[in-house]
Amino acid sequence: MEGRIYKDLRVGMRQVELTPTVSKAADGSSRTEENAPVLIYDTSGPYSDPAVETNILHGLPSLRTPWIEERGDSRRLPGLSSEYGRQRAADPALAEVRFPGTRLPLIAKDGHQLTQMYYARQGIITREMEYIAIRERMNCEALGIESHITPEFVRQEVAAGRAAIPANINHPEAEPMIIGRNFLVKINTNIGNSSTSSGIDKEIEKAIWSCKWGGDTLMDLSTGINIHETREWIIRNCPVPMGTVPIYQALEKVKGQAMDLDWPIFRDTLIEQCEQGVDYFTIHCGIRLKNIPYSQERLTGMVSRGGSIISEWCMRHNEENFLYRHFDDICDICARYDVALSLGDGLRPGSVNDANDRAQFAELDTMGELVEHAWAKNVQAFIEGPGHVPMDKIRANMDRQVEKCHEAPFYTLGPLVTDIAPGYDHITSAIGAAMIGWYGTAMLCYVTPKEHLGLPDRDDVRAGVVAYKIAAHAADLAKHHPGAQIRDNALSKARYEFRWKDQFNLSLDPERALEYYKQNHTVGGEFCTMCGPNFCAMRISHRLTEACNMMQK
Amino acid sequence: MEGRIYKDLRVGMRQVELTPTVSKAADGSSRTEENAPVLIYDTSGPYSDPAVETNILHGLPSLRTPWIEERGDSRRLPGLSSEYGRQRAADPALAEVRFPGTRLPLIAKDGHQLTQMYYARQGIITREMEYIAIRERMNCEALGIESHITPEFVRQEVAAGRAAIPANINHPEAEPMIIGRNFLVKINTNIGNSSTSSGIDKEIEKAIWSCKWGGDTLMDLSTGINIHETREWIIRNCPVPMGTVPIYQALEKVKGQAMDLDWPIFRDTLIEQCEQGVDYFTIHCGIRLKNIPYSQERLTGMVSRGGSIISEWCMRHNEENFLYRHFDDICDICARYDVALSLGDGLRPGSVNDANDRAQFAELDTMGELVEHAWAKNVQAFIEGPGHVPMDKIRANMDRQVEKCHEAPFYTLGPLVTDIAPGYDHITSAIGAAMIGWYGTAMLCYVTPKEHLGLPDRDDVRAGVVAYKIAAHAADLAKHHPGAQIRDNALSKARYEFRWKDQFNLSLDPERALEYYKQNHTVGGEFCTMCGPNFCAMRISHRLTEACNMMQK
Repeated sequence: MEGRIYKDLRVGMRQVELTPTVSKAADGSSRTEENAPVLIYDTSGPYSDPAVETNILHGLPSLRTPWIEERGDSRRLPGLSSEYGRQRAADPALAEVRFPGTRLPLIAKDGHQLTQMYYARQGIITREMEYIAIRERMNCEALGIESHITPEFVRQEVAAGRAAIPANINHPEAEPMIIGRNFLVKINTNIGNSSTSSGIDKEIEKAIWSCKWGGDTLMDLSTGINIHETREWIIRNCPVPMGTVPIYQALEKVKGQAMDLDWPIFRDTLIEQCEQGVDYFTIHCGIRLKNIPYSQERLTGMVSRGGSIISEWCMRHNEENFLYRHFDDICDICARYDVALSLGDGLRPGSVNDANDRAQFAELDTMGELVEHAWAKNVQAFIEGPGHVPMDKIRANMDRQVEKCHEAPFYTLGPLVTDIAPGYDHITSAIGAAMIGWYGTAMLCYVTPKEHLGLPDRDDVRAGVVAYKIAAHAADLAKHHPGAQIRDNALSKARYEFRWKDQFNLSLDPERALEYYKQNHTVGGEFCTMCGPNFCAMRISHRLTEACNMMQK
Repeated sequence: MEGRIYKDLRVGMRQVELTPTVSKAADGSSRTEENAPVLIYDTSGPYSDPAVETNILHGLPSLRTPWIEERGDSRRLPGLSSEYGRQRAADPALAEVRFPGTRLPLIAKDGHQLTQMYYARQGIITREMEYIAIRERMNCEALGIESHITPEFVRQEVAAGRAAIPANINHPEAEPMIIGRNFLVKINTNIGNSSTSSGIDKEIEKAIWSCKWGGDTLMDLSTGINIHETREWIIRNCPVPMGTVPIYQALEKVKGQAMDLDWPIFRDTLIEQCEQGVDYFTIHCGIRLKNIPYSQERLTGMVSRGGSIISEWCMRHNEENFLYRHFDDICDICARYDVALSLGDGLRPGSVNDANDRAQFAELDTMGELVEHAWAKNVQAFIEGPGHVPMDKIRANMDRQVEKCHEAPFYTLGPLVTDIAPGYDHITSAIGAAMIGWYGTAMLCYVTPKEHLGLPDRDDVRAGVVAYKIAAHAADLAKHHPGAQIRDNALSKARYEFRWKDQFNLSLDPERALEYYKQNHTVGGEFCTMCGPNFCAMRISHRLTEACNMMQK
């Protein structure tokens, strides 16, 4: 689809063509009715575009570079600003693992601002905003459905801080997307190596795979070797915004000794990653020295990696969290590249027993305080939440977050609604995710079947993404997002009319649906093994229509 | 555990022994604390009892036969009352597929009543009721947790119709269980062949498999060949109550011609199945001739097999549903064997578009009318519901059902909260199931990944059961069922203390959890590949406790 404000804007989406409906009239003749194609929000970027040839050695095309240049608020740096980044670039031992080619990073010109929030507050509708508006209302115009989502609405939501567009000027490969509760619910997927597993190729594969199945953003949570190089490969090949938890890399730089972390190391890590193109940072700035002892009242203490690292630092030094103290400095860095802040919940509950306790809520209050600092510097921000929360305590999380965090977007892990199903936590958490999405969470962080047990592989990523696409879409339906039900209706109509291929093409995982179907069928039959021909309710239901029609004559 | 009213009553449950917690004191010495064993509600019957040898050729031991005989309200028949049953028993061609050995059926003595509801209303606490009370409050006494569930409470709930104990006197092999919203949420699993698949051995295997993973009841939905014999095999080997949809078999008897169905054939089918030991019947008595045209307003018409069959009969004959007309006769038959009625929802919505429409709700009103007829004859009953319902419309279903059906237990399929995920409908529906369970549904009918695509195999049954155990348990937690959280807490404590084996033994699927874990580990390590040793939040969190303790000194 094309833009109206920016006429040359082209927005990626998938169009599913449908076969016609063939019905029998009373006189035995058959009647054919067309079924309109359905547009589907697609996060796979150029990978699914037959007109684009992709090559991970080259990375993806730089969709947004001309947009950023056109605005004139940035300049290209002569080299990397991060000391560590320069070291890595100069190290000949890393030649083999390094992404080929160098790109010089962009930064805001002195005296200029360039975040999407800044533009929104100036009344400027950026190309990113129009792109998003077109994408979020894709089927509405064709079907005459009212939608509140316009480019101006996108601008207003970003200006108010109710929505964020993670869009680092150094990640021009990513297609714009928005995180906010008045938009489609989004999902984040996590990948990344650990010291005991996974190589760069596996991580790139998982990244692309996650986008294929519908991940809206991607976090690289690598904690193993070559984190810097792994990240570069992923960003250059990633069509969606990418987030990180910078403290993981900072900790590697001090050889795993939390005691040795300090602001200069952390600062250099932020700049290193800003210039690579990370779109948002999870920063555990909500941990306060005074609140850490609350975690000792818990059954499962602290289960956030970043949170526990920073807490250990605070306790050993008996000092306030340096991320809290330097929060304004962090915002100043992010503002120069338009990196969004995801205020990390170091005190999220790791068991239903610990849900909604004072440790968790004290941190939420701190986040509410900090988000206003970010906004004061035009830095986009959202708030991380949940973990393990039983169903009856989910709503309280959402309501409290809206109140304490001034409507900043909420981004939650699950929540997992019970602790007793290791191996199936994509399901325990999809239940909670669907509910909290309905209540107003803007982005759901996926959980894979391997949660609590190990690192996800390809199959786990697929299982996690699909479970979360289900949760997010269920939330969109429950929220009556304009046009959300079009896909359900088209798929159900296809199902009812035995248009199997249409049903599969409209589904979240056409390959899996077809695979199951094929286990017992030849495509095209008017029944499945579930019921067999005599017991197919839909078949009988069609005969019933004939009977009803006959009676009316 | 043993009874108090019936001293010799022994109640089956699983006890998970836990290893002790070992912690380090400040002086470096280690301290050991015992962890109390946890009792788990277990539906696998004698199959998991090392003291019982099972053999499917003999069937399970008849746990309840002495209880039933002791009450003296039944007599053993000299032969089968059903004409069809006698034909099948006499047919030499069926010798090979027939369950070995004959058992003569029980029936109420003339002038006697013997349903659990009858006893409850007489103020009698049966052994079944005490068994249930012990099972539903298993961990409470040891841990000093208040529980509302006593044998007298069970009696009151059954007397009021708010709960049902499906317990056909001809299925003495089954362990008693209860369906009611003031008890643990239960799950039903469906198995059964169709004309295009599955043999008897596969169906028995699936039945036992479903009980192993936690199915509380089992429906045999066979529509293929040898339905009668398949059912006999399953009942004789089934440790949980079993339900059927008798119209499936009735339709096979008239060679698939719905037009040819009539009351005598249906009546004989009911008696045939009552005497085999079916514990509850799904009967589509809520379909009214006048309401059928409402289904024509829908996107997906009728998706209930039984409902569409009976609707076709009504429309072709232009006559009121004979199941509705003969409802009192049906109750009279069921009363003689204590078969419960599951009022089938022929008009359940097959797409989110059709949820909560007038077709669905008109049928619910009819069910509310009929359930009072069942109760007038002391026949236990529950009401079937949902299908495809978006999250925002789930609560209305529950509230309306409670109001219109006079608090009779609700038994719902899913609901599926979106239509777009064929191949993953165990997940789309577990989301809705958890929610409606929390709102008050007493039993959740499982959905497998093969829903809409084919018949479930063993793996699908396991996936469906575990997804539904998650949903039911999440609902128990949200409802604050006394003692429900004990298992979560014990598992989370084990997780936090790296007692991996305890964690797995307490989980819903220990085999799967161990399998995933083993993919990257040696059992016993204090971290997993997810984070690796330096990034294990729980490990750091333990160090934090040491730090907090040190500071307090």
